[in-house]
Amino acid sequence: MLKKSFENVRKNCPLIHNITNYVTVNDCANVLIACGASPIMSDDQDEVAEITTICGGLNINIGTLNCRTIGAMLIAGKQANELHHPVVLDPVGAGASRLRTDTAMQLLEEVRFAVIRGNISEIKTLASGSGTTKGVDADVADKVTEENLDDVVAFAKAFAKKTGAVIAITGAIDIVADAENAYCIRNGHPMMSSVSGTGCQLSAMTAAFVTANPDHPLEAAAAAVSVMGYAGEVAYSRLGEMDGNSTYRNYIIDAIYHMTPEMLEKGANYEVR
Amino acid sequence: MLKKSFENVRKNCPLIHNITNYVTVNDCANVLIACGASPIMSDDQDEVAEITTICGGLNINIGTLNCRTIGAMLIAGKQANELHHPVVLDPVGAGASRLRTDTAMQLLEEVRFAVIRGNISEIKTLASGSGTTKGVDADVADKVTEENLDDVVAFAKAFAKKTGAVIAITGAIDIVADAENAYCIRNGHPMMSSVSGTGCQLSAMTAAFVTANPDHPLEAAAAAVSVMGYAGEVAYSRLGEMDGNSTYRNYIIDAIYHMTPEMLEKGANYEVR
Amino acid sequence: MLKKSFENVRKNCPLIHNITNYVTVNDCANVLIACGASPIMSDDQDEVAEITTICGGLNINIGTLNCRTIGAMLIAGKQANELHHPVVLDPVGAGASRLRTDTAMQLLEEVRFAVIRGNISEIKTLASGSGTTKGVDADVADKVTEENLDDVVAFAKAFAKKTGAVIAITGAIDIVADAENAYCIRNGHPMMSSVSGTGCQLSAMTAAFVTANPDHPLEAAAAAVSVMGYAGEVAYSRLGEMDGNSTYRNYIIDAIYHMTPEMLEKGANYEVR
Repeated sequence: MLKKSFENVRKNCPLIHNITNYVTVNDCANVLIACGASPIMSDDQDEVAEITTICGGLNINIGTLNCRTIGAMLIAGKQANELHHPVVLDPVGAGASRLRTDTAMQLLEEVRFAVIRGNISEIKTLASGSGTTKGVDADVADKVTEENLDDVVAFAKAFAKKTGAVIAITGAIDIVADAENAYCIRNGHPMMSSVSGTGCQLSAMTAAFVTANPDHPLEAAAAAVSVMGYAGEVAYSRLGEMDGNSTYRNYIIDAIYHMTPEMLEKGANYEVR
Repeated sequence: MLKKSFENVRKNCPLIHNITNYVTVNDCANVLIACGASPIMSDDQDEVAEITTICGGLNINIGTLNCRTIGAMLIAGKQANELHHPVVLDPVGAGASRLRTDTAMQLLEEVRFAVIRGNISEIKTLASGSGTTKGVDADVADKVTEENLDDVVAFAKAFAKKTGAVIAITGAIDIVADAENAYCIRNGHPMMSSVSGTGCQLSAMTAAFVTANPDHPLEAAAAAVSVMGYAGEVAYSRLGEMDGNSTYRNYIIDAIYHMTPEMLEKGANYEVR
Repeated sequence: MLKKSFENVRKNCPLIHNITNYVTVNDCANVLIACGASPIMSDDQDEVAEITTICGGLNINIGTLNCRTIGAMLIAGKQANELHHPVVLDPVGAGASRLRTDTAMQLLEEVRFAVIRGNISEIKTLASGSGTTKGVDADVADKVTEENLDDVVAFAKAFAKKTGAVIAITGAIDIVADAENAYCIRNGHPMMSSVSGTGCQLSAMTAAFVTANPDHPLEAAAAAVSVMGYAGEVAYSRLGEMDGNSTYRNYIIDAIYHMTPEMLEKGANYEVR
């Protein structure tokens, strides 16, 4: 199924509308192209409904949100819902400020999401309505380990049931769950956390995958997560002695550009719980 | 003439004011430095007139336009006109939303442009006042081919005559035309469309070239287009087996950094129709 | 002391709040990670006080300032002062427009800075209240040379005394001064001026260094400046024949990622005047 999901992205070249932060936006654009999709960025309230209409899917990322763009997120999200376009939410930093938590909660109330992707602290914040996220990285106290994995899987399934969205919690072990099933994915490399925006890139790609696979959001989101993680492994294996996080950032996108559905099938490392 | 145009950029180091999108802005800054110019980005209505005044030329790009920056584009454009500084328009996504089309049309009415650079769908939108651009890429139905090239050349010359601007339509074949003559440029590589923002970079460079060559906007714009395309060829030839669109993005800018006017003269592949 | 300063960054992993321009923001994020810190970007007036509160230090950069973000800079700066978090000011383009000069002057009046880092033209503008900065690069007339170094050192010490901030003037020779002592640092490579944003990156890193070394802002700022300059040398030594400013940009961040406090101690080239 992961292979088929990826094939559909390459075949359908979905056009993805991104309302995203200005920190990692260029990487989001290039990673969408690398996986076979096409990006458009637009965040003005006067055009987002139209832009979403010509696209196949929408990616909403609240990093560097502001009073002007929050309204655009709501307008675009509702329009996408009306057109039955899948919408992905990346609640960057939810829990780090009231504005971020409140915006994420309002989006959850007013927009139906196909996938919500974040780190464990961000997703816990959404589930409880408040949080203690330290910046944009997951809180150490929240860390997903082999020991608490079953608990996190149960939490993810419950939150998926409540929201109707696929829940993707990414970290050392990634969990992608709907109400019934959870992919536990063990791809990736610790050095990926040294590259700003791998999460943002993954959310953009996830929007492309669910757009190209409208009937299989769980498998599509799991495929996107596996692509990102496996690309992190491939890219790591290329690094020379003097290459650091900046070269790694380029090599991850390069790896996605060259990845085939067959390579993904061989490289993906997951179990379903 | 292309060689001379490039020499003048390297010699004069023009300072270029950019009001551009936040997706590809870093590449615009680095490509301007690579070709010998100097960038400044500024988009607040309270300072753009002053910033344009200390610069030699202005590059207006409507990707990620918003209610705040549209006013800044108009103020800066008019001020540049008053000072006889060349202004370049990149109508990113014109035709994809009414806001983009209307903003581009308003800019055309209120500001005199030295060069308008876009893909064929964007330029057709400007010429007709409405369009069907799909996102930020050219519509397949609009594609420039050897078969319809004469028609597109005639269209570009007519639109150049109407606007008084040099018209640069970039794609597999690039057309750079004033009312009388059109450069048909066959540099570049198909993989350039896998890098987000090569068009934005080219518009920024075009502003530098016309600023350094105020009396020869046609040749200057053709030179900028040739530099970009030839850099795409040089960069492609460097790519290793695992290099994808992200490494390619870096190598294109690198190639411009190392390109000499002599190399351009040898590498440029064009005819005048 | 430089070695110890760098060790403290790696050990304490300070979380840095950045209100910065959208041109070089991605590099600021990745350079903070490379040196051992953690970045968060946030510029909305409704959340900056909270974001600054969860961080250890604040970096204010006025490149691409606008009417919305200027208020956020003031709110965040005052909140950081209240919490005794160190604040760094990067007055990008002060002197190039009244808005930039006035904003920088207002920030100096209302916020207490631990470090002010800019090129010589920007710092002179702040010291005199007006300036003739040409764009975002230093004016040639202002250039720091071996001949006028003692004068510039005296100027930096006097401005440090007046503001209570460490003054970091970067260029071919870098000067980092408090009221009593000035580090004159001769690291770096001329090609660094071909990479957009090395100054912005340095300001972000400086915030990390002073946050991790609250009792030694002078040494911390000097260490950050040395790290940047020495990384420029290491990165330059890696460049192949076809590598230009874009690859150099990546290699500089890579070099910081791999730099150890021991390497810094050996590589730093400075005297105290």
